[in-house]
Parts: sequence; C-alpha cells; structure tokens
Amino acid sequence: MSVTKICMVGAGRVGKLQAGNFQRYIPGGEVTALVDTSEPMLKDTGEQFGIEARFTSMEVALDKGDFDAVVITTPTPTHKPLSIMSAEKGKHVFLEKPMAMNLEECDQIMAACERNSVHLQLGFMRHFDPDFVLAYERIQAGEIGEPMLVKSLTHGPGLPPPWARDLRTSNGNLAEVNSHDLDATRWMVGSNPKRIYLEVANFKGDERGVDADHYYDNMIANLKFESGALGSISGVCPCDYGYDARMEIIGKKGIMIVGELKGHALTVGVDRETGLVTPIFQRWPQRFFLAYIHELQHFMESIRNDTIPKVTGIDGRWAVAGVLAGTKSFLEERPVLLSEVM
Amino acid sequence: MSVTKICMVGAGRVGKLQAGNFQRYIPGGEVTALVDTSEPMLKDTGEQFGIEARFTSMEVALDKGDFDAVVITTPTPTHKPLSIMSAEKGKHVFLEKPMAMNLEECDQIMAACERNSVHLQLGFMRHFDPDFVLAYERIQAGEIGEPMLVKSLTHGPGLPPPWARDLRTSNGNLAEVNSHDLDATRWMVGSNPKRIYLEVANFKGDERGVDADHYYDNMIANLKFESGALGSISGVCPCDYGYDARMEIIGKKGIMIVGELKGHALTVGVDRETGLVTPIFQRWPQRFFLAYIHELQHFMESIRNDTIPKVTGIDGRWAVAGVLAGTKSFLEERPVLLSEVM
Amino acid sequence: MSVTKICMVGAGRVGKLQAGNFQRYIPGGEVTALVDTSEPMLKDTGEQFGIEARFTSMEVALDKGDFDAVVITTPTPTHKPLSIMSAEKGKHVFLEKPMAMNLEECDQIMAACERNSVHLQLGFMRHFDPDFVLAYERIQAGEIGEPMLVKSLTHGPGLPPPWARDLRTSNGNLAEVNSHDLDATRWMVGSNPKRIYLEVANFKGDERGVDADHYYDNMIANLKFESGALGSISGVCPCDYGYDARMEIIGKKGIMIVGELKGHALTVGVDRETGLVTPIFQRWPQRFFLAYIHELQHFMESIRNDTIPKVTGIDGRWAVAGVLAGTKSFLEERPVLLSEVM
Amino acid sequence: MSVTKICMVGAGRVGKLQAGNFQRYIPGGEVTALVDTSEPMLKDTGEQFGIEARFTSMEVALDKGDFDAVVITTPTPTHKPLSIMSAEKGKHVFLEKPMAMNLEECDQIMAACERNSVHLQLGFMRHFDPDFVLAYERIQAGEIGEPMLVKSLTHGPGLPPPWARDLRTSNGNLAEVNSHDLDATRWMVGSNPKRIYLEVANFKGDERGVDADHYYDNMIANLKFESGALGSISGVCPCDYGYDARMEIIGKKGIMIVGELKGHALTVGVDRETGLVTPIFQRWPQRFFLAYIHELQHFMESIRNDTIPKVTGIDGRWAVAGVLAGTKSFLEERPVLLSEVM
Repeated sequence: MSVTKICMVGAGRVGKLQAGNFQRYIPGGEVTALVDTSEPMLKDTGEQFGIEARFTSMEVALDKGDFDAVVITTPTPTHKPLSIMSAEKGKHVFLEKPMAMNLEECDQIMAACERNSVHLQLGFMRHFDPDFVLAYERIQAGEIGEPMLVKSLTHGPGLPPPWARDLRTSNGNLAEVNSHDLDATRWMVGSNPKRIYLEVANFKGDERGVDADHYYDNMIANLKFESGALGSISGVCPCDYGYDARMEIIGKKGIMIVGELKGHALTVGVDRETGLVTPIFQRWPQRFFLAYIHELQHFMESIRNDTIPKVTGIDGRWAVAGVLAGTKSFLEERPVLLSEVM
Repeated sequence: MSVTKICMVGAGRVGKLQAGNFQRYIPGGEVTALVDTSEPMLKDTGEQFGIEARFTSMEVALDKGDFDAVVITTPTPTHKPLSIMSAEKGKHVFLEKPMAMNLEECDQIMAACERNSVHLQLGFMRHFDPDFVLAYERIQAGEIGEPMLVKSLTHGPGLPPPWARDLRTSNGNLAEVNSHDLDATRWMVGSNPKRIYLEVANFKGDERGVDADHYYDNMIANLKFESGALGSISGVCPCDYGYDARMEIIGKKGIMIVGELKGHALTVGVDRETGLVTPIFQRWPQRFFLAYIHELQHFMESIRNDTIPKVTGIDGRWAVAGVLAGTKSFLEERPVLLSEVM
Repeated sequence: MSVTKICMVGAGRVGKLQAGNFQRYIPGGEVTALVDTSEPMLKDTGEQFGIEARFTSMEVALDKGDFDAVVITTPTPTHKPLSIMSAEKGKHVFLEKPMAMNLEECDQIMAACERNSVHLQLGFMRHFDPDFVLAYERIQAGEIGEPMLVKSLTHGPGLPPPWARDLRTSNGNLAEVNSHDLDATRWMVGSNPKRIYLEVANFKGDERGVDADHYYDNMIANLKFESGALGSISGVCPCDYGYDARMEIIGKKGIMIVGELKGHALTVGVDRETGLVTPIFQRWPQRFFLAYIHELQHFMESIRNDTIPKVTGIDGRWAVAGVLAGTKSFLEERPVLLSEVM
Repeated sequence: MSVTKICMVGAGRVGKLQAGNFQRYIPGGEVTALVDTSEPMLKDTGEQFGIEARFTSMEVALDKGDFDAVVITTPTPTHKPLSIMSAEKGKHVFLEKPMAMNLEECDQIMAACERNSVHLQLGFMRHFDPDFVLAYERIQAGEIGEPMLVKSLTHGPGLPPPWARDLRTSNGNLAEVNSHDLDATRWMVGSNPKRIYLEVANFKGDERGVDADHYYDNMIANLKFESGALGSISGVCPCDYGYDARMEIIGKKGIMIVGELKGHALTVGVDRETGLVTPIFQRWPQRFFLAYIHELQHFMESIRNDTIPKVTGIDGRWAVAGVLAGTKSFLEERPVLLSEVM
C-alpha cells in the first residue's frame, strides 16, 4: 500500500494524539514533518514519535518538508492562514474544528482548496465513531422515522486554554466544545438549523481566575431546523466529572439514544454504601479513540482514491454559522435566525 | 390504624388507578364515594372497585357522601370549582396537576383550603418516586455541588384527549404533560424559574386529525433559574415508543442521572440481527407505580398527623406560572420572564 | 374487603419486615398477634407495629390469640413443630424457606396442612418479583425456546447467625441462602433437578471467628435436570458488597437475563478517577421489596378465595432435597443423584 | 519503524481477520506470504489482501517465502507440525488456541521454540481486550481482594466445523470454544486449576445433523483452583443469539463484572410492546475487535524488542490440561484432578 506523507501542524494535545495514531494504527500514513511555533513542544513531540523534520514555521515546512498532506490541529485563529498556505502548495488539508473564526474565512479556505484541487476534511470525528455511524445509518434507513427532536451534549472536563475562553480569539465554548453538536445534530436530523436561542451561565469562572468578558462555562441552546425539527444542545466545560458526549433523537416512530457515559464494560462493587463503580470516559481521546483513527484513515483513503471526504468545509461552515448566531443570541437575549449571520 | 375515607372525583384513567391503589396497597385510606358526570364510567369504575356511593355531582356527593377528603382527577378546567367546593365543606384536597388554568384560580384554591384549614396536596408524584427522592436527598447533601444545569423530559405515548389539546380548555402539552418537569426541575435545582423560551413543532397533528389552533406535539423549553442555573425541558406527546421520564442534573462537582427508559431488569436476546430486547415503561402508571401509591400514603399521613404535605399549592402555582410564560414565549417567539405573567 | 388476621411468628428481621408490610401495604391482612421466645424482641417489634397480643409460646398464642393464619419466620429447626401445631388448630400457614431440616419433616408439614384443610405457602418470594414473574411468563410463552442452561446466584452481605452456619442446626448456606436458587432454577427450567455436584470454599471463616465443621462461605453447584438441562448456582455469604440475586437462562432460541446488581436508576459522577457510581441493593428487603409484599397479598387471596397458593410445600420439599444432595456431594466429593436422598 | 514480515498460515476466517488487521491497523507488520492447503481459499484471501506469495505447503513457504514470523490459524491437529517446522526455520510463532491436542504436543512445540530461540505467543486475545486488561490490573492492585470465585462464559453463535465436533480430531467445544475461559479464569484468579467437574448436554445435535460420539453443545464446568478459589465456566455453541463472553470475579472485598452482551452504545425504541432494542455482538471479531489488533501488535513488539510475549506456551499448555481433565470428567461422570492428566 502506498503511504501518504503527513505534516502534523501543531505539536500539542491533538497533534500528539494523531501523531501517535499514525504511528500505531495507520499503515497508510506516516508523519514526516512536524510544525509548531513552540520549540520545546516541537522537540518533545518530535522525539516522542520519531519525527525528524521539525519546523517552527509553516512556510519553511512547506518549502523544505516532504509531505503530501497537512493535519492542522492549531488554535482556531490560525486555521485560515495555515490551511490556505498549505492548499496553495498543493497539500491536502485535514482541519480541526472549529473551521474558522467566521464565514468569510470558511469561504476563503474552501476556495483555496478547490482552486488547488486538494481535499479538505474537517475534524468532526463523530462521523467516524462506530455508535454514531450506526445511528446515522439506521436513521437513514427509516428506523425511527422522520426526526422530530434531537438532543446533543458535549461536556468536557478541563478549563479551556486562555485563547479559547475569549470571544476575541475564539468564539468560546459554543465553538470550541459544542461545534461538534451543531454539526452532529445537523447530520443526524438531515436538515440545516434555522433558528437558535442560547442561554449561558458562568459558575466557575471566578474561582478559576477567568475574567474574560462574556465568558460562560454552561450553555443550553435551543434549535429549530429547516425541516421543522427541534433541537437542544448543552455544553458544560469545565464539567470536571469526565468527558461526556451523547445524543438522543426522537423520530415520528421512536427514539434512538447514542453513546453512554461509561468508558469501560467493567463494574466493581466493594462497598455497599457506595454501590457500584464503573469507569467513565476521562477525556475525549478515550471516548472517540476509534473515531480519531478512522477519520484519518478516511482522509488517507480520500487522498489515495481521490474521493471527496465525508466531512467537508460545508459542514465546517454550517457549524461556524451556528456558533455566530448562537453567540449573537445570548448577547442580545433573543432567538436569532441563521439567515441573520449568513 | 384509623382509616381515612376518600371521595374519588373522576372515574377515568387516574381515578381508576388511584382507586385500585387504595384498595390494594393503602390500608390507611378507603374510597367510600365516587364522583363523575358520566353515568357509564361511574358504574364501571364503581363496580370494579366496589364503591357503592356514586354521584354525578360534586355538590350532591358533598351533601350525601361520607368522606374526609377528596382526590380530584378530573380535567384541568374543573379543578378550581371542585376543589374550592370541597374545601368549603371541610374536606382535605388532593389535586391532580396541572393545578388550574391560571394563577388567579391557583390563588383562589389555596385561599379556600387555608380558610377552611384543610390540607392541599398536588399530584406531583415524582416527589415520591424512590429514584427522584434519592436524587433530591443526595443533591441536598451536596454530592454534586450547586446545580448549574438541569435537563428533564416527559414523553408520553398516546394522543391527549381533545380538551387537553386545545389552548382554550387546557394549556396544552406544556401544562398537561410537562408540568411535571417544570415542577421537578424547580424542586431539584432549589430555585424558581426566571425566564423561559419555548420552541414547538407539530409533526403528527394532521395525520391524527388534530386541528386545534397552536397545537404542538413536540416542544423544547429553555430555562433560566433565579440562582443562575440553566434548564431544558423536552416534551413529546404522542411519542408512541413508550412513557419516558428522565432527568439529568449537572452540579459544580458532577453529574446525576435519574431514571431510565427500561421498565424491567430483564434482557432477552433471541435474534442476532435484532440484538437485545428490554421491556420499556409502556405507560405512566408503570413508570411511577410506587410514586402513585406513596403520594396517597403521604396524603393520608398528612391528614392523620395534621402535617403539611411535601407538595402543595405553592408548587402547583409555580408550574402554572411556567406554563403561562412558556406558552406566551412560543406564541410571541421570544424569551419570556416569569415576572411578566405573575 | 374482609381482613385476614395474622399471627406473626418470629419478631426478628423477617418478622419485622413483614409486620411492616402488612401495616403499610396490605389492606387485606392485619397482624393481630406476635410470637417470639425472646421477650425483648417481642416487646420491641410489638411496640413498633402496634401489636398488642404478644406471646412467648406458640401454644399459648394458638390458645388465646385471635387470628386465621400464621406467618412463620423463625429458624429452620422450628419450622416443623410450629407449622404442624398451627395447622392442627386450623390456621393457614405461610412458611419461610428453607421448609425444614429434612424430607420427613417436609412430608409431615404437608400432611398436617392437608389433614386440616389449611393452605400452606412457602416463602420463595422470587415467584412474586415483577422481573422474575415476567421472565417466567415469557419463557412459558416460548420466547427463548426450551431451557438448556440456567445460572442463578444469591450472594448476601452479612455473616449468617450461628445456628445457620452449623450443619447440625441448619443445612448451611446452601439451605439458608441458596434454597432460593434451587427453587427458582427448577421453576424457570420447568424440570426437577436430577444430579448435583458442589464445590465449597471457606475464605472468611477464620477471620470472622467461625469454627463450625464443614463451614463454607463460597459454593458453586453444578446441576443436571431431568429434562437434560444444565444448571449452575453460586453462593457467596458473607459477600460484603451488597445483596445480589440474578439469573440467566439460555434456551434453544436465545438468552434471558433476569435482575441486575444496581438498586436504583440513579447514576452519579463526581470524580473522573472513580468514574460513575450507582447504588447497589444493600440487603434483601430492598432487592425483593415488592415481592415480599406481593407474596403476602397472594397468601391473603389464597385464604380469601380458597385457592391453592402458587408456591407450596412441594416446592419447599424439592429445595430441601437439593440441599441434602448438594451437601452430600461436597462431603463425599462426588456428584450425587437426588434419587439417593429422596 | 521496521516492519516485520509475516506468513499467515490458514486463509480461513481467522486468517482473513488477521490479514485484514495487519493491512488496516498494524503498521509494524506486513503479511508477505499466505499458506493454505485449499487453492480456492488461498486465491480468495490472497487477492482480497494483496498477498502475492501463496503456498499450499508450509514446507515450500518456509523454503521460498520471505518472512520473519508465522501466524498459525489452522485447525488444532495441525498446530504441532506447523509450529515446530516454522520454529526450526527460525520463524517466530504466533499460535491460535487451543495450543494442541495433548500435553506432549504442547511440550514439543515449546521445546522447538526454545531450541531455536524464537518467540511463541498464544492466541488468547482476552489478555489484550481493554476491559479484561483493566479488570486484571485492578484485581492485581487489590481492589476486590483475593479472588474467591470466578465465573466465565463463552457462548458462540454458529455450529463449529465438523473437525471441531469430533473428539478424535479436536477436544470438542471445551477446547475450541472454552479454552479461552480456562485460560482467562486462571489468569484472573492468579492460580492454577486443581480439579474440574463437567456436565454436558446435547440439545441441538440431532436437528443439525451432528452424529459424532460424545458431541455436546452445552456444558457447565465446576473448578477448584490451587488457591482454594472456586470457578464456573459455561459453554453454549451454537447458541444462535450472538457472541457472548463475560466474566464475574468475586474477591474477599467485592465483585467485578467484565464485559457485557451489548455490541454498541445504541438503544432504539420504536414499539412499546417490544420495548428497547440494542445491538448485540454478533460474532467474535466484533467482541474482541481491538484485542485481535493488540495481540498482534504485541507480537510485533516482542519480536522487535526481543521480549517475551505476555501469553506463552505455558498458558496454552494449562488450558489443554484443563480440557483433557474436563473431558475425562464428563466421560467418567466424576470430578477429575488436573494432576491425573499432567
């Protein structure tokens, strides 16, 4: 099998996870270059995964590195320049969510990829999770009938990094955490969101030293889809108790519940007062372990076979639109139509 | 043990359920009179449970019947007259939810009960469900910390009766089905709702011959509580797949999940393609079997010991307020403060 | 409804549980007399449940008490004299398991009840547990086909009382704890046991000061039924972790799993390292809460309607036979046919 | 990373599964040769996975093929010659369970591997299943205390092939299906089995045309370990309902339950009468998907780093000993000490 050469852009948490996945689980791809602006992280991650070619600049990497595709795992504001630059050099682009800061950036990224005939895949890995995939297929087959109501949640354990808490450098938790839900509800319902209403709350900001304007750590979004279906998304981050990503879809015929809190088929009872104990998914890499592997294998296959990835810039753009409308909603304390921001 | 004599008001579904519970499970109470405007139902239910004294009019029942308390299970618009009439005759009142059509009625009911020194208990039976009670106690004990976000759902299998589908004779599903959630979220969070936003949809009305104005069979409510906590309530009725009532509460320390869809600890696998099958709660009497018994036992004890019931008119009134604000929200397509209707 | 008057024989754990159930949940029965050889327990239990007529002797109770039936909850060696004495005075007999010490006693008890035309019901409450009942009905309906293999377990939390640990005054855990499994597997499979092989182990005896000969706290029984079906029963007592009673039946068409460890539909997560926590059934009264109520209601109905109880001396006798063969098996280290002891 | 070249011996079900795993998930190994006595299967599997070098004889493969290690997935009677032949040529050996037909063969295989300094890993993949591994680690850490009792089951959906049903060409289901349990209970308990008693039954043989002597499709084994712990293993094959592999371990402090029947975190309810439906593991490759990948990655690492695999011939030999004693037990209808066959 031909092996696709990859430049991993970003040597942080996601970069490490995906470099490790290429090394351990993906015969079809090999990380041959690593980019990060931080020298120590570059060294640390590079050594851990035996990546010799390390660069502190994307420009230099594109100039001197030997690779066919980039996997971009850096903070949101960098997505546009890094992906456009890579596309212009003919590299296929795998881009982490959220796609970009706004719709203009999304459009520019898509245009650059199209112009240069490179594939663009978005990092919505739920499309590659065995449970979500099975749910999707069974909904498509009509098992629960036309979707009427969908509920999705992503609750993450830890405090996001400073750039992700500030509405000037990211679009907050709705973007960084709940983009997945905006995408996944649209995917499952099979309809675009039409209206969103968002309530937010800040319960832990003070005690954790967050003073960013409009910071929130809890949110509930109310959605109306073009099909008439209703939706609800909850976001709690930091939730401390683990990583939690579940969905319920009610169709005209019935209900489907996707995912569960527990992280292992293991139950322990050693104390009658406490009761039974079961491991929880502690972090996202555990919950979506296989999905992270399969999304990259899919990207490799899309390149190898020259087929369009299942998750593209269009999906990324819709999620960004939902983020923008949702943010406007809580700031203006009213329901906002997506058409207002698109 | 002294036995409290009960007049069951309403010989329909709830009346039958509770008459049966008195007969089979509640030594402390005995149904000695039955009231219903429908002669056939009166006869049918009366014979089934051996209740000799049957009346088509509350006035006559109060005049001629021998009882200490009434259990009112009739449609919402009758709640005010029936309960006030009973209170005026010194009868203790157990009143099914929703308490009444509006806040004025609630106030009049409460005033009548107070004036006549009779107890008033509302039929929010979740306060007597073993799982909900345990959840409440553990939240009170601080196990998950201060509640930040609560999600509650009630999905019922069958089409509500005509009077319950029409905003002129009831307040629709938000009142008839989701009153329980408005009450239970307030109970668990320990704070009054402050603002509500409601999205509704009508997916099955046409095919089931419902042409009432503003009819909806799906709803998602977004709540903000006085404490700052957020909430979400979903209602689907008819949902067809069973009776579904669950809750999730996320506090500053962690998560609590209350209830489950399955109706028995029984799993069957006879076909690899289908997989495993587990009975579901088919109707509300199954899901809240013990709660329906325990709420009446509590009412009996409140009368016997002259103590204030755990669920009173105040709880009923808050749920009605939430219903009124929620209805206004979807009609006006904007978030509504409860203070606008109170 | 006519009320059956009950003499509760035994004021200990089971006596208290069942006296409480009559008082709170069973309108059809009233405990009007209490018997126990221990004055303090008699007083304690009598006062707790308002039972005025208290006796330290069954003879005196039968002579002076006013009751229609007895509920015998005393240690196994007392079962024969107490039940025969009661039957001779025309009292219906509800008898806790194990029925007796040996088959001769069983036969004498049954003969006495028959001779005096009184009903005899055995305390195998699993026949009244909603999950076990549903399993039985579905197996009878052919859902999983002919039973091929059944596994049943009862693990109890606490050290049994001294008389129950000694093979001279009881038949050990196989009788006191796992009688239920011997009965329930026979009931579900619909066939009598034919051969049994038992392995036992003593892990905690020393550290808990048990020096009875042949004491064991762990056992695994291997069963062959007359139908050709296989079975397995495990017993662990004290198991410390809670009360555990579950069953799995594999039929020619499929599998059925009955019961679960967890004691509430409540899940809590407050610590990522620990994971999720769910209450366990801590003791048998929690696990079989409804079954204990329903078995007594059934006894009341059998008396009221003069119908034969669903669980009789025949079931009790088969369980005793299984106990005797199983005990012989581990003592002689070989499989034992039930025909050897019957 | 250096890539280890593999000769896949056996082009059937397991051969295909593992060739596919190398291709899709294991960068460290590459199947460069394929051996099978059946030309059509050789062609079929070879083409499916792009393996050019195909051989109908192990001798020729060893002579002409280019590989470092063999993965032997052929029927049990072939294990000894194929593995010894490979070891003699210096190839590392991965050998599917059961290791061999008897202990002499086991000893010869181990001696050949040792003599030629090649690694020998047995295909007990449960040692690489995330849930089993976690259970093992937590037991080792003392969480449930010293194991007192272990229950393990493997129920498989389909009728085994003819050679596996005949005691002359295999050791029956105890070997082919329940070897895993014999191994896994020994692993978890941390003690060797000392005595075994086996009951068997034949429920489906006639209707499926099996007339082999001593054929059984249901079995229950009773175990006593050297440590004093007790054990139970159930085997049902064909069970039809799915693939089922679970374990429960009770230690002095508590219980641990490993594995579950359900194959996805997906629950569907579309019919109140049926209730909830959840996918089951349909076949073993689904249940142990990751374990099959991880056992081969471990084998690759053992070769690359020259370390002893976690599962060796010693484990394989103990399972064979358990099989021989268990078979003797049901044939002679008595408990058999493992020392009688070792």
